[in-house]
Amino acid sequence: MPFSFLRPELDQLQAYTTHADSDHLPSEPLDILDTNEFPADLPPDLKQKFVDHLWNFIPANRYPDGSHVRLKTAITHYVNSQITTPGQPITPDQVSLGCGSDELIRSILLATCGPGQGKILVAEPTFSMYGILARGLGIEVISIGRNPDHFDMDLAAADQALDNQAIQVIFVVHPNSPTGNALTGAEQAWLRTIPNSVLVVIDEAYFEFSGLTLAGELADHPNWLILRTFSKAWRLAAFRVGYGLGHPEVILALEKLRLPYNLTAPSLAAAQLVLSEQESLLGAVPGLLAQRDQMFQALQAIPQLRVCPSDGNFIYFQAQEQRTTQQLAQTLRQAGSLVRFTCDGIRLTIGTAAENERVLRRIQAWAKTR
Amino acid sequence: MPFSFLRPELDQLQAYTTHADSDHLPSEPLDILDTNEFPADLPPDLKQKFVDHLWNFIPANRYPDGSHVRLKTAITHYVNSQITTPGQPITPDQVSLGCGSDELIRSILLATCGPGQGKILVAEPTFSMYGILARGLGIEVISIGRNPDHFDMDLAAADQALDNQAIQVIFVVHPNSPTGNALTGAEQAWLRTIPNSVLVVIDEAYFEFSGLTLAGELADHPNWLILRTFSKAWRLAAFRVGYGLGHPEVILALEKLRLPYNLTAPSLAAAQLVLSEQESLLGAVPGLLAQRDQMFQALQAIPQLRVCPSDGNFIYFQAQEQRTTQQLAQTLRQAGSLVRFTCDGIRLTIGTAAENERVLRRIQAWAKTR
Repeated sequence: MPFSFLRPELDQLQAYTTHADSDHLPSEPLDILDTNEFPADLPPDLKQKFVDHLWNFIPANRYPDGSHVRLKTAITHYVNSQITTPGQPITPDQVSLGCGSDELIRSILLATCGPGQGKILVAEPTFSMYGILARGLGIEVISIGRNPDHFDMDLAAADQALDNQAIQVIFVVHPNSPTGNALTGAEQAWLRTIPNSVLVVIDEAYFEFSGLTLAGELADHPNWLILRTFSKAWRLAAFRVGYGLGHPEVILALEKLRLPYNLTAPSLAAAQLVLSEQESLLGAVPGLLAQRDQMFQALQAIPQLRVCPSDGNFIYFQAQEQRTTQQLAQTLRQAGSLVRFTCDGIRLTIGTAAENERVLRRIQAWAKTR
Repeated sequence: MPFSFLRPELDQLQAYTTHADSDHLPSEPLDILDTNEFPADLPPDLKQKFVDHLWNFIPANRYPDGSHVRLKTAITHYVNSQITTPGQPITPDQVSLGCGSDELIRSILLATCGPGQGKILVAEPTFSMYGILARGLGIEVISIGRNPDHFDMDLAAADQALDNQAIQVIFVVHPNSPTGNALTGAEQAWLRTIPNSVLVVIDEAYFEFSGLTLAGELADHPNWLILRTFSKAWRLAAFRVGYGLGHPEVILALEKLRLPYNLTAPSLAAAQLVLSEQESLLGAVPGLLAQRDQMFQALQAIPQLRVCPSDGNFIYFQAQEQRTTQQLAQTLRQAGSLVRFTCDGIRLTIGTAAENERVLRRIQAWAKTR
């Protein structure tokens, strides 16, 4: 039945499905290496602390704190402690919290564009959610390309788009997903030239792995907005907490558009708790990066593959014969290693040592058959 | 600094603040009677069960199930068991879940309207979130009035609005908040006449208190969408879970627009758990309704007040001298009973017996000074 009250553009949209191609999977156990999560749960003592806190201090029947004051303050302490360049410290009015970065991306789009009003610029391949959420709102997405070897952005095309199109927002990821490359010096220099009439969103979802941030430059660039998440190195994907850092006026616009109770009470408490245990949680990152570097070398030694260096907790690679990459992804999934086939490549999340060893063995076995 | 990438309409918006007038409050303990929550946490054995489940089966580091399949199925069993009129049972493809009803309201608005495209119709006073979220998206809100004695809607004005304005969505609450009145027979008959070109949203947030639902008629009215929540009688306000019931095509539009991981893993588990303990949880509702009826009689005995009968877990009343209602609300808050002053009246949530007794005593003391 055609419902005339629904926007006709919605017909063109697909509902987003997680874990693509979940048909034809083997029975458990599966190694989940397709969603860039940290491969371990919270340490038992910390999880116990959380569970005790929930039991004692979170009444299930009461709405959560809608002001987020305590968590915002804790976030500023953390962010400021990680900024190595001198600059003005971030204050709580420069922080907005979302149900994952996803909600913040949507609020950014709602604050700046509308159906047929304003466009966004992305450099493909990149995180798909910018385009998905924009198209869902009827907002046009202008895509520029990347250098096929190193995946740095085609800045000439970007400049041309800015000159000729009504671009309201540029989305970049630092380091990029799925390709793993951090913003180059040239790309950063280019971002510094973007006029204040355009919002620049720098998604630092993988900051805790890369150690790279542009937060120290926020005071110099009021049109920059940095996104972060608790879903990766902080191990809280189940709880959906992301945050944005930016100029107080831009943050205020996001605060006006967010749902009043967008974060659950357990999520607020969990984020607060992990920040207080920074040392033990982020202390596990170097070990994961060592695993990543080992995987990178092992994959590079396979002549049938093209492998990209990564500043994140994942590695992007392609088969030299392009059409076989998708077959490889399917082979791995069927063998029990869930990987993400996206943009003609495979994005492999670094898992536990055992998971990494299994997927590597499976890739090596595949290579022998080529 | 004016940021030209921000929509200028946002200047006019206020960020939503919860617990209005939280200045000038006494120190703890406060009786929270302003947000229509159920006054008790989950029973200890159930909370323990939840905490154990979280400890054993919810890895904090993994994204939640984005498909919601199990919870949707459990919801259909519950909804169908409560429909007394014969009719087609609700199926899982007729259910969409949101971060509270708030996210569903926003998705409804995004699916049907846009800045300057389409309008919504509400009958004031009613739940404020429809108007707040619509205005945030640049959508015009057409308000009609209600009869000042019984708060039923001015249906002649509603018909006129439908004839003359591009109304895409009508929002009604059954029973209404803040006034507590259920849809009358005449109002229900009117809803049945709304053409399929207009979406009718029937918010049954208080269904578990009223026992009244139009879910049995959904099959006859493909343009109806019913909203429900786990935040009231189910005692899960902290977890933010709401759901919508409607025609599969309308539901699909909401599914396309929701964030892929809009519900946290603990929230999905908590909703699943309370549904499995329906008898013990909803078994507490009759006691609360007895408290409400007692409160209603006690308030009605106070000549300085005009009190409305309620089908929800709250009572709406006004001082006979209109300008003193706000003073009374403030007096109560300062004494430690948080109540909601809204639309020239006071909405008082029914709390525990002790909380109800305290607020009643404070109202009676105020009345003696008039």
